[in-house]
Amino acid sequence: MEKRAVVILSGGLDSTTCMAIALAAGYRVWALTFDYGQRHRVEIEAARRVAQHYHAAEHRIVELPFMRTIGGSALTDDALDVPMTGVVENQIPVTYVPARNLIFLSVAAAFAETVGAFAVYLGVNALDYSGYPDCRPEFIEAFTKTARLGTKAGVNGLPISVETPLLSMSKADIIRLGTTLQVPYELTSSCYLGGDIACGVCDSCRLRLKGFAEAGQSDPLQYASV
Amino acid sequence: MEKRAVVILSGGLDSTTCMAIALAAGYRVWALTFDYGQRHRVEIEAARRVAQHYHAAEHRIVELPFMRTIGGSALTDDALDVPMTGVVENQIPVTYVPARNLIFLSVAAAFAETVGAFAVYLGVNALDYSGYPDCRPEFIEAFTKTARLGTKAGVNGLPISVETPLLSMSKADIIRLGTTLQVPYELTSSCYLGGDIACGVCDSCRLRLKGFAEAGQSDPLQYASV
Repeated sequence: MEKRAVVILSGGLDSTTCMAIALAAGYRVWALTFDYGQRHRVEIEAARRVAQHYHAAEHRIVELPFMRTIGGSALTDDALDVPMTGVVENQIPVTYVPARNLIFLSVAAAFAETVGAFAVYLGVNALDYSGYPDCRPEFIEAFTKTARLGTKAGVNGLPISVETPLLSMSKADIIRLGTTLQVPYELTSSCYLGGDIACGVCDSCRLRLKGFAEAGQSDPLQYASV
Repeated sequence: MEKRAVVILSGGLDSTTCMAIALAAGYRVWALTFDYGQRHRVEIEAARRVAQHYHAAEHRIVELPFMRTIGGSALTDDALDVPMTGVVENQIPVTYVPARNLIFLSVAAAFAETVGAFAVYLGVNALDYSGYPDCRPEFIEAFTKTARLGTKAGVNGLPISVETPLLSMSKADIIRLGTTLQVPYELTSSCYLGGDIACGVCDSCRLRLKGFAEAGQSDPLQYASV
């Protein structure tokens, strides 16, 4: 029987590496991208390129316009500034979006149930994002149980597994693995500012550049200031 | 300190009774209605009337257009017929919408976090809807834990409680309680077909009419055929 997985694909480095891992594990993949009015819309274009590169069975782009109006995050709320000052460890960052991964995983569970997939890949990382509660392993475990109890597939004995292969990897580890899997990092986009060329100074760009440096690789992306 | 609650308000009998219960418990309420392309859009108008009647602090209508395209339910998919033949006990009905309450509660958790509410009211009922996995108490418990772990409010020690006061009540019990609380049932809408006048023969209408009969009350709604 064909193994099917839904991959939550933002178009960034982590989710693209996740896509490669799912394919390497033998899954046929359905890519799922959320358009929630975030500043980095350039990521959605990156997600399209990645889904196409990997011949996803389907690339579903789901609009969540309410996430802009619910607000409360520097990524969706124009009144808040994107941080350029370095992540503060174990504090919840200003880029936290209320219940984001909870909403993403819930929609992914519905999508998985509809296309007959029993795995959902999510590129969360508990090391670099220790401040985000919805990137932690105990949240992922609790969600998996909730989805098993609350879906038809789950109660019928075919629960969805949430796969988070990057959970305890450093950015350098992720890039090393991705390089082995020939991930096309030139197609991805990570910058919080969402310009056509990555800024090189926001927290996300810095983390990425540091990861490439530590992995001994060069980032194929163009940067405005490095 | 003001007690704030989000009430998931479909405009039907159960969620409207939930609204009255939240108010009776001393909460200031934020009403949250989902527009997910369901056939019974008339319900959204009913929700507006109910929110207005109860002077909700805000009535937020959140569009979830992807729930139509994800499909797989008689309520959102035009290719499937709404059941008129009576509910089969302990089977998952054709009106099951993939991961519906999981998605609803996730968005409600985000909304609650944004407006500073620590309770979410959901009018699920495990008796009449025993076939829906996402109406069962074990699902609600698992979700509550997941939301506690995956939100900023939760990890900061102010977790969201999911209140399901109707969980083990019969429809007649709900109507009896609602009548005591002077719930304006004439403003609500329950019919699966979503016409201006309730059909009186779909499963939802039949359950409602049976409930009113058992409660010894008369349903103030007009029906096309009773």
